[in-house]
Amino acid sequence: MVKSRGTEIAIGDRRPGCTLTQWLYEELRFAILSGRLKRGVRIPATRSIAVQYGISRRTVVAAFEQLLDEGYITSRTGHGTTVSRTLPSDFLPYRRPETPSKQRVGADILSRLQPPIRPFNPISPAVTEFPISLWARLASRRLRQLSATLLSGGDPAGYAPLREAIADYVGTSRGVNTRPEHVIVTTGMHHGLDLIARSIFKPGDQVWVEDPGYSGTTEVIQNAGLVPIAVPVDERGLIVSLGKEKAPNAKAAFVTPAHQFPLGSTMSLDRRLELLQWARATRAILIEDDYDSEFRFQGRPIPALQSLDRNGLVLLLGSFNKVLFPGLRFGYIIAPDSLLEPILRLRFQMDRYPPGPQQAILCDFINGGHFERHLRKMRELYAERWRSLRVNADRYLARHLSLPTIEAGLNTPAYLRTRLTSHQAELAATKLGIQTLGLDRFVRQRQDIRGLLLGFAAFNDQQIADGAKLLARALDGRR
Amino acid sequence: MVKSRGTEIAIGDRRPGCTLTQWLYEELRFAILSGRLKRGVRIPATRSIAVQYGISRRTVVAAFEQLLDEGYITSRTGHGTTVSRTLPSDFLPYRRPETPSKQRVGADILSRLQPPIRPFNPISPAVTEFPISLWARLASRRLRQLSATLLSGGDPAGYAPLREAIADYVGTSRGVNTRPEHVIVTTGMHHGLDLIARSIFKPGDQVWVEDPGYSGTTEVIQNAGLVPIAVPVDERGLIVSLGKEKAPNAKAAFVTPAHQFPLGSTMSLDRRLELLQWARATRAILIEDDYDSEFRFQGRPIPALQSLDRNGLVLLLGSFNKVLFPGLRFGYIIAPDSLLEPILRLRFQMDRYPPGPQQAILCDFINGGHFERHLRKMRELYAERWRSLRVNADRYLARHLSLPTIEAGLNTPAYLRTRLTSHQAELAATKLGIQTLGLDRFVRQRQDIRGLLLGFAAFNDQQIADGAKLLARALDGRR
Repeated sequence: MVKSRGTEIAIGDRRPGCTLTQWLYEELRFAILSGRLKRGVRIPATRSIAVQYGISRRTVVAAFEQLLDEGYITSRTGHGTTVSRTLPSDFLPYRRPETPSKQRVGADILSRLQPPIRPFNPISPAVTEFPISLWARLASRRLRQLSATLLSGGDPAGYAPLREAIADYVGTSRGVNTRPEHVIVTTGMHHGLDLIARSIFKPGDQVWVEDPGYSGTTEVIQNAGLVPIAVPVDERGLIVSLGKEKAPNAKAAFVTPAHQFPLGSTMSLDRRLELLQWARATRAILIEDDYDSEFRFQGRPIPALQSLDRNGLVLLLGSFNKVLFPGLRFGYIIAPDSLLEPILRLRFQMDRYPPGPQQAILCDFINGGHFERHLRKMRELYAERWRSLRVNADRYLARHLSLPTIEAGLNTPAYLRTRLTSHQAELAATKLGIQTLGLDRFVRQRQDIRGLLLGFAAFNDQQIADGAKLLARALDGRR
Repeated sequence: MVKSRGTEIAIGDRRPGCTLTQWLYEELRFAILSGRLKRGVRIPATRSIAVQYGISRRTVVAAFEQLLDEGYITSRTGHGTTVSRTLPSDFLPYRRPETPSKQRVGADILSRLQPPIRPFNPISPAVTEFPISLWARLASRRLRQLSATLLSGGDPAGYAPLREAIADYVGTSRGVNTRPEHVIVTTGMHHGLDLIARSIFKPGDQVWVEDPGYSGTTEVIQNAGLVPIAVPVDERGLIVSLGKEKAPNAKAAFVTPAHQFPLGSTMSLDRRLELLQWARATRAILIEDDYDSEFRFQGRPIPALQSLDRNGLVLLLGSFNKVLFPGLRFGYIIAPDSLLEPILRLRFQMDRYPPGPQQAILCDFINGGHFERHLRKMRELYAERWRSLRVNADRYLARHLSLPTIEAGLNTPAYLRTRLTSHQAELAATKLGIQTLGLDRFVRQRQDIRGLLLGFAAFNDQQIADGAKLLARALDGRR
């Protein structure tokens, strides 16, 4: 029980896997949202909470900082800390999460977007376009002459020729400065970020994340005991100055400069330089998710943030799972010299090394020129499908949704023109069998974003037109 | 600085990824081993250390408990806590570890046992015996007719038909009570244990581990912030009564009942029942690593511990990586109902789902009867190779080593008859190009075990005879 002006706050049990900070943060937030800690009421000092629960004051301070950041509590010199009079309203009604900070994500998203893929599934690439029979031929050839070395255990960083092929590719197409020794083969972005978050940082370290941003990132960061700090993005990407205000001493920033998720914007050069400057000044690490950068169908390719870095501060995450097919499970980290060792050590401890034969097949696919060819083909196809979505949205959805101009990727945000919330729009769409995600799933503190995330990559003209009509009907029913 | 009778102890910085408990434990241990905290000297009370470092007393107590467990400090009522007068001698000379508790493992083991595989590499199966051209045919057939579903994202638990095949296999061959819904496909034992350790337990939870035991297990457990408690094993497996003495309220026990690593013993039925009884009484979870159980070449197959459990307390870990080939990267967890959800949630968050096409190929391999056939063949081959190692050890190594009777697996302990330490023997062997690991690598507190771990699975008669002669020469040089 925390006593607060006569109010007693029951603090529930800590759930498995929940850090002390997360636990305290969530319990206090719950007490505030449920009204047990009333608006304007004074909260005990961090020191007395620490003593009462036998936890360190640092833990309590970290929980308080997150509550401050998110607007649940207010702190004024001389007045102590009080519950805010205006609360972040989008969280109401609040349900007690089953597991820490995961209430809107993971399993739920997965079940909504499972095959069969239907419009406007925002995460699915056009898997049916993948040249699977070519892949089968390469696989058969490689497997018949497989060396015992590829069958045996391998290098935790991955198969050397594949690492070379990846270094070549990111060098030529993304302007990335790297050598094969800096490439670590992973199963994809999540795996790469999990390895980084657990091996390079300390529990309690703050990490800037984009708001809105990919919820999967935040989950991985929190699972490692790190504290995500939401920093707003605009049409030029992450607003670095706001990050510096909120958490000047964060240990890292996670960004999607090539194609911001979910807004689709590209980070401007001045912001990139400002971000690098902050990282250099504070020795923070920048984690660049080069998400969807391959599918730029408008404008010139923008070199990766990593290519501007001269100080070994950027870790780049890439993935083959969207570019080839999601069931492949291959991605990579490009790590500077100084960060390789801890990442590789954890990799070896947690899952040894990537599968040998599969790495060799992917390597053959890249070195045979098939990867570049497939990319080119998909880039054109996705550009067409994006145009088709625009045309059909103009025709059927103009009353409901407005689409920004995007330049890359598999999906686009579609902002609501009516009064529906993102969640209401998602529900209405789902009822009629449309696959989509409300932008509220990716918003952390922003109040100004309402819309749906619409994918176009996996659907032909007819499917897009049918989907647009159906979505219009769904939203009509809820105007 | 911790002040202790005028002695000042510099406490170093906490390394990334190191929990507060690990950090304090290691710093105090280092201060003791380096002689800065002298034998017999009194250590400040947990309370004053907690206040001084602004950490919780619980954290300090946990670090102290581990130091007590391992014999570095002694606690007597009325006398406070003092540095032990006799220290665990095998740790001297002690080097400050670069990363928490990982000083003897990981990268080092890996580099020693890398291909080319030579006698007596203890971790390598006979990969050259794997029917790779049959696998290539199955792969080619499956890939040419692959469904879009297998190319797309899948179920975090794995491909349903593969889970069925695994449930069938562990049911018939290991007596495991399970249904396909309880099978989670992983990349192997380490991955499975990492998922379990992070999703089911809280940082600071104690886990019994076998002494001697597999160091890779301890690493994964520590990476999750859990505290391994070393419990001695004898020829009947884990000595449950000692576990109950040392850590009665541990939250889990990690055991290798089928084939203890590295001693090769099988856990007796009475110990199994005693372990289950403890788990039932304390609601602890038993993590059963069914390591090498497939390769039983003597005696009857022993059903898994899981098959005796009626209370959903056992998580079973299995792997295809040793049975088929290490580069495959497939294993599984068999989880009771109540533990499925948190494991699957973390799995989805950290690496989504296993690779689709590969799972289908493995499934075809099992369902076509090739898996059972390969197992039978390997069982006979390994039995022969084990006999060959015994014969050659009798002939060339009788002065140096004594081999116990083992009934399963890819390797055997070989106990030193001379005065060499395990480490000296390993060094001498390595100098002449023999691949082996000293048993000291797997010992946690035991003083009574000196020997080498010798693998026989990957070597023919000639290689084993040559290896035995070479090893004899190496050990002769160091008598």
